[in-house]
Amino acid sequence: MALKAGVGARVPPFLVMDVIAAANALAASPAAADRRVIRMEVGQPAEGAPELVREAVTRSLASGVPLGYTEARGREDLRSRIVTHYADWYGLAVDAGRIAITAGASAGFPLAFLAAFEPGDTIALTIPCYPPYLNIMTALGLRPQLLPATAANGFQPTVAMLEALDPPPDGLLIASPANPTGSMLAPDDLAALARYCHNAGIRLISDEIYHGLTFGKPAATAASYSPSAIVINSFSKYFSMTGWRIGWMVLPEDLIRPVECLAQNFFICAPHISQIGALAAFDCHDELQARRERFSRSREILLEALPRAGIDRISPADGAFYLYADIGARGWNSTAYCRHLLYDHHVAATPGHDFDPAHGEDFVRFSYCASEADITEAVARICR
Amino acid sequence: MALKAGVGARVPPFLVMDVIAAANALAASPAAADRRVIRMEVGQPAEGAPELVREAVTRSLASGVPLGYTEARGREDLRSRIVTHYADWYGLAVDAGRIAITAGASAGFPLAFLAAFEPGDTIALTIPCYPPYLNIMTALGLRPQLLPATAANGFQPTVAMLEALDPPPDGLLIASPANPTGSMLAPDDLAALARYCHNAGIRLISDEIYHGLTFGKPAATAASYSPSAIVINSFSKYFSMTGWRIGWMVLPEDLIRPVECLAQNFFICAPHISQIGALAAFDCHDELQARRERFSRSREILLEALPRAGIDRISPADGAFYLYADIGARGWNSTAYCRHLLYDHHVAATPGHDFDPAHGEDFVRFSYCASEADITEAVARICR
Repeated sequence: MALKAGVGARVPPFLVMDVIAAANALAASPAAADRRVIRMEVGQPAEGAPELVREAVTRSLASGVPLGYTEARGREDLRSRIVTHYADWYGLAVDAGRIAITAGASAGFPLAFLAAFEPGDTIALTIPCYPPYLNIMTALGLRPQLLPATAANGFQPTVAMLEALDPPPDGLLIASPANPTGSMLAPDDLAALARYCHNAGIRLISDEIYHGLTFGKPAATAASYSPSAIVINSFSKYFSMTGWRIGWMVLPEDLIRPVECLAQNFFICAPHISQIGALAAFDCHDELQARRERFSRSREILLEALPRAGIDRISPADGAFYLYADIGARGWNSTAYCRHLLYDHHVAATPGHDFDPAHGEDFVRFSYCASEADITEAVARICR
Repeated sequence: MALKAGVGARVPPFLVMDVIAAANALAASPAAADRRVIRMEVGQPAEGAPELVREAVTRSLASGVPLGYTEARGREDLRSRIVTHYADWYGLAVDAGRIAITAGASAGFPLAFLAAFEPGDTIALTIPCYPPYLNIMTALGLRPQLLPATAANGFQPTVAMLEALDPPPDGLLIASPANPTGSMLAPDDLAALARYCHNAGIRLISDEIYHGLTFGKPAATAASYSPSAIVINSFSKYFSMTGWRIGWMVLPEDLIRPVECLAQNFFICAPHISQIGALAAFDCHDELQARRERFSRSREILLEALPRAGIDRISPADGAFYLYADIGARGWNSTAYCRHLLYDHHVAATPGHDFDPAHGEDFVRFSYCASEADITEAVARICR
């Protein structure tokens, strides 16, 4: 008798992971021997975790103290340190009881979705967006409600967009800075959205994973404006700990225990060794700010050079480390363009199709967190 | 307007995590100053990861090679090493393409459930069981179908139990050795179940997390008997890497790509640093076998001593590192008993309620992977 396939058989790939696999294969092939593959497809800083993180973990391993399960919500010292972080960065007092340590922001999404929504519920979000938002929602039986965000409205949602929805959605998912566009919500606009959602009974989920990586504009946290918002953050981007799979949530009071119970069952705890490293990451601001400066220079290099390669319609790029460029106006197809770039020029980039099934074929995302030398070389190859 | 609470607000805790938190709090209190808290509530070896694992991770950190995202299915060297492990332990040839590295066995369950089932589908399993089985299923909209396993049938399912189900279930979840009972399926019985499921279109999920921790009886893998079975395993128990959150799946051909897509979206990848450590874990069999010998001695000590404390109805204990004891026949209530044991004798154990909502109040689970000195001291306190 034939076996069934489940929901998962219909979940699309997180395409960038397939592009990474293709770039890995090319980089390992003889073809890459005299021209290395430059990685602009993936959002991870070239250098990995900062030095003090590696030192703290090395010390912990040398101490012989076993790294057993932590409590599901995470180590108390790390949760307390995150409380201090909110005071330092946002001038915000958050109770440590509201902090939950997670296995990256990735773990935060199913925890938030399962804690706050029922199957069939709708969650509004702008598109283009981080693809797993849609794929996790769909796999869990939730219905994404796509908001028409474009360059004209800065790729971010507005209260007016929400007011136009009838019936109103059950949730709103925002990201500022956003992947793939780099666009940001001004603090006043974030405050207006947060208050509107709270008053209208719409659960706000704010993905703040790119905080710390902004280029001139301030980043505010939804926790400042709403007691019911769920904040999701991570040590992967500013703190450069991608492969360590470590992040955190700031929870509203009513979801603290539901998220704890879900985390106990689904994850047991976030990786203990990564929790040790993450605690040290807060002592690395000098090193991390230097990296941010480098991203800023790479951003300038690309914003100056890409128009010479015919790529001149680029999203706001206020934060994160991505440029999202409209190449469709030139008649180019993004999948074909990325394939050409990868196999003929050994530069990996991600087709917009990953972020926007409807219009993505017109867009390409360049990540600019590779080394400065790589960015300069990539520019030379792209402009050639 | 009031905000909704979601599915998660109804998911019960994984109670042992709450017991761990209570034991942690007691251990940190002044009350523990002259009588330390002995941990028999949690299934994690006292020593933590073996020495070569810590050395390999320390070397990796010193090398300065960044620990970025791996491919979603995990590092190729680790997947290849697991292929060798199946040849070594089971004489079984498994293609590396069928191996997926996961963030512990915990990550394997939602990946398997989402890949193989639709909301509303039924999965049969014996109870008492590992509590997150039920809680993850319920949170994902699946329906656990509880099979009446008792001491009389060795706490394991049989083909006859499945034949009696009308309609048949969509899946069967087995664990051998099982938590909390330690019971095992004989290889022939496992083979019969696997073949029956394959022929009847029932997706078999085999949790093999306690393989390597058996006391006389052989452990077989479902992968030997069924091309459609999903095998879930972990480095947490025999390999003693609990807090590292690292495990693996052996996938049937039809679920390789669905699980990869789900993992890309839900997890990105398992912790990279733990993948490095896990690779070295396969070189640690001498150290790990010595630990197994210790568990074996602790098991003997408890099986000999507990009857003197009136605890004489104990489940088979063929594997894992748990004793599941029926204390109801003596008129004791397990929650009260565990509370008394924790606060009056500073020995933490887990009430059976966690593993069996219906009959668990009659049972208590003792984990015996603490140090030998702790086990001896615990016996003295319990028998007092």
